[in-house]
Amino acid sequence: MNLRKHVSLNINIRGNGQSATLAINDRCKSLMGEGKKIYNFGLGQSPFPVPMPVVNALKLYAHEKDYLPAKGLPALKEAVAGFHKAKDNVDANPENVLVGPGSKELMFLLQLCFYGEIVVPTPCWVSYVPQARILGKKVRLMHTSFEDKWHITPRRLAEFLESEHDIFRPRILVLNYPGNPDGQTYTLDQLKEIAEVARKYELILLSDEIYGQLHHKGEHISVARFYPEGTIISSGISKWCGAGGWRLGTFTFPKDLDWLLDAMASVASETYTSVSAPIQYAAVHAFRGGVAIERYLWNARRVLSTLGKECHHILTEAGVRVHPPEGGFYLFLDFTPMADRLSKRGITDSKTLCERLLQETGVAMLPGSDFERPYEELTARLSYINFNGANALTTSETIPIHDVLPEGFLQQMCPDTIEGVKLIAKWISGSNKD
Amino acid sequence: MNLRKHVSLNINIRGNGQSATLAINDRCKSLMGEGKKIYNFGLGQSPFPVPMPVVNALKLYAHEKDYLPAKGLPALKEAVAGFHKAKDNVDANPENVLVGPGSKELMFLLQLCFYGEIVVPTPCWVSYVPQARILGKKVRLMHTSFEDKWHITPRRLAEFLESEHDIFRPRILVLNYPGNPDGQTYTLDQLKEIAEVARKYELILLSDEIYGQLHHKGEHISVARFYPEGTIISSGISKWCGAGGWRLGTFTFPKDLDWLLDAMASVASETYTSVSAPIQYAAVHAFRGGVAIERYLWNARRVLSTLGKECHHILTEAGVRVHPPEGGFYLFLDFTPMADRLSKRGITDSKTLCERLLQETGVAMLPGSDFERPYEELTARLSYINFNGANALTTSETIPIHDVLPEGFLQQMCPDTIEGVKLIAKWISGSNKD
Repeated sequence: MNLRKHVSLNINIRGNGQSATLAINDRCKSLMGEGKKIYNFGLGQSPFPVPMPVVNALKLYAHEKDYLPAKGLPALKEAVAGFHKAKDNVDANPENVLVGPGSKELMFLLQLCFYGEIVVPTPCWVSYVPQARILGKKVRLMHTSFEDKWHITPRRLAEFLESEHDIFRPRILVLNYPGNPDGQTYTLDQLKEIAEVARKYELILLSDEIYGQLHHKGEHISVARFYPEGTIISSGISKWCGAGGWRLGTFTFPKDLDWLLDAMASVASETYTSVSAPIQYAAVHAFRGGVAIERYLWNARRVLSTLGKECHHILTEAGVRVHPPEGGFYLFLDFTPMADRLSKRGITDSKTLCERLLQETGVAMLPGSDFERPYEELTARLSYINFNGANALTTSETIPIHDVLPEGFLQQMCPDTIEGVKLIAKWISGSNKD
Repeated sequence: MNLRKHVSLNINIRGNGQSATLAINDRCKSLMGEGKKIYNFGLGQSPFPVPMPVVNALKLYAHEKDYLPAKGLPALKEAVAGFHKAKDNVDANPENVLVGPGSKELMFLLQLCFYGEIVVPTPCWVSYVPQARILGKKVRLMHTSFEDKWHITPRRLAEFLESEHDIFRPRILVLNYPGNPDGQTYTLDQLKEIAEVARKYELILLSDEIYGQLHHKGEHISVARFYPEGTIISSGISKWCGAGGWRLGTFTFPKDLDWLLDAMASVASETYTSVSAPIQYAAVHAFRGGVAIERYLWNARRVLSTLGKECHHILTEAGVRVHPPEGGFYLFLDFTPMADRLSKRGITDSKTLCERLLQETGVAMLPGSDFERPYEELTARLSYINFNGANALTTSETIPIHDVLPEGFLQQMCPDTIEGVKLIAKWISGSNKD
């Protein structure tokens, strides 16, 4: 019997491959296995370890074995609501929190449950469109521009919504700031204006603030402050808490969206059931925070902002269009200024750009097309995370908290990151000579 | 703004509520909160703690924070393959293992990815049909009978497959043994014959063997031994390893079904990403096994088989139709013999049966209809797990390994289980007097 002749797959699944961010990681590992020196700017993983109090909590609760409620451990829902109250000045209620195995899974459940349009500004996180494809649906893309810092403006949003004959259709707009893949955020005034537009058109906002605590100045602002009745805040421990592999994300709903929360929890109870119990108990300590976690965040921000600025400087000098980073650990590079030169080398799209860069220098980035940018646009995401975060953090902790990091810190702590970015600059200028 | 007026949900999700097993648990907790004495035979959770070496492994790997591959940690895939080789005498390959956050989630991915018919004998596990409903699909039910020990027979399977004009349609048959909700298993000869029928009709088998290591005599046999080329083995740490709340399940595929494995891993990478890293590292130790885990299993089986037999005895005496348990921790009770008497009390379906039993005695069971049995059939699942498993295990460990448990063990260790079962018997005989 040969079961291959029976291949019978849902047509929405065929040929999808795996998530772009996971795929680039596997690719890098395999190239390194061949003995090549690789600068992996591809994966979006925090370089820092999980803070010690949170790791210790996991050890303490390692024996917890009961199935937990589908919506989440009550103490964790309370901690998450408390977190958003304290950090974001939002009146969050524990009853309106949903805990899931990563905010990616929660986003999938949202797409599965919500019957309406999901609008995503691009460049956007890599999984929105593949998730929709799996479900046989479409997300509505809204392209932004370099000039608008790769984010939407209140005016463009209003125009977009007005352009429909059906302006009150059920619709969720996804916002993500500090942004993946762009590292940019919104100002207080912009958020206020976006909130006004959303309120006017009765638009639900999914505000993905998973990088909020990695705002480089620690000044993250949630749009939920200005639009509490219509904003779902997405968060989790993957980015600011370094625990991507632990798989825990949260959605905090406004009261009037309980119908959506309940529907998602219902699907959760029939699929993943609930998030791993020991992980949930440990996460309580992450969201409760405290002095140790604040110090961790302070140092993480200082390292990331110093490194991000330096990468930005090197790339700008080389002629790449890129905005100075404001949060998180990404830069979104635009090679349009050297399009002619690249074209002469046979590079006319972002995929080829990244493939050639990888082959010729060992530098791995994700092409702009993975973030739903037009195929021919010469953009790419750089994650400046290929350094030993534990060492960098320990060293940063020895330096007085309001000082800038001394000269030489980056060379010592993040040598591969600096070297990899310089290789991009060199590769680009090499293309000058063609 | 009132978002309630915008309620807009996928029609397949509306009104689903939460999983029956989780719902009964919440119901019991709420009744206990009101001060009522409740005998919770509803939830399907192992009463035993996670074995100490596995808990210690979780502590050891608590710091692991990296995103793991969507298919699973390589060392865990190796341990799972090794487990099936050693325990089931099946030539499993680590490359054909898929690790997920519970086998429930993996079953959902299977239903999402596989384009074909899924055939489920009833009584069956509570989530197959709700999962299909969420996806807008149907599963094909195949009712079994008390006389056939609630399992399929090779003859009936062949008849079922022959009854189609399209006998080679893409089709997966789900087998579950030792069974939930019935506690029954198959004999070696039955499995051989089922394997023959499956091979003849090129039928894929999903063999859910999550209770395999809880076969009361430790004599579980996998159908994959006789049909390796067409059997997917489902397992996990929720039942035999007591770690339901940890959320880790596994599917082990035959080589020729790599197209299905790859499709499921592709969806995994866009949804839950991968299973929590510390949990995967710890699970390696569960699947590798060893003396401590074997002793744990031996004692768990002795407690469960002794208790199951006693429950069976009490219920049979009271006139309930029920088979002596062979594995796991369930009995599937058939009250048909007292249908007339129950009818006089206004009980003519399984849902009313369980509701009245709960209200009048505090005993909670799940109605047969939750397991897709006909609504009017007077059946219900009893999980004999409402006792302190840690105490029972510790006490059992003090008794020589080949001895039977002494008289009085159950009264001391599982008083609520015995009392609850006696309450059912009394309630039934009370119905005699009507």
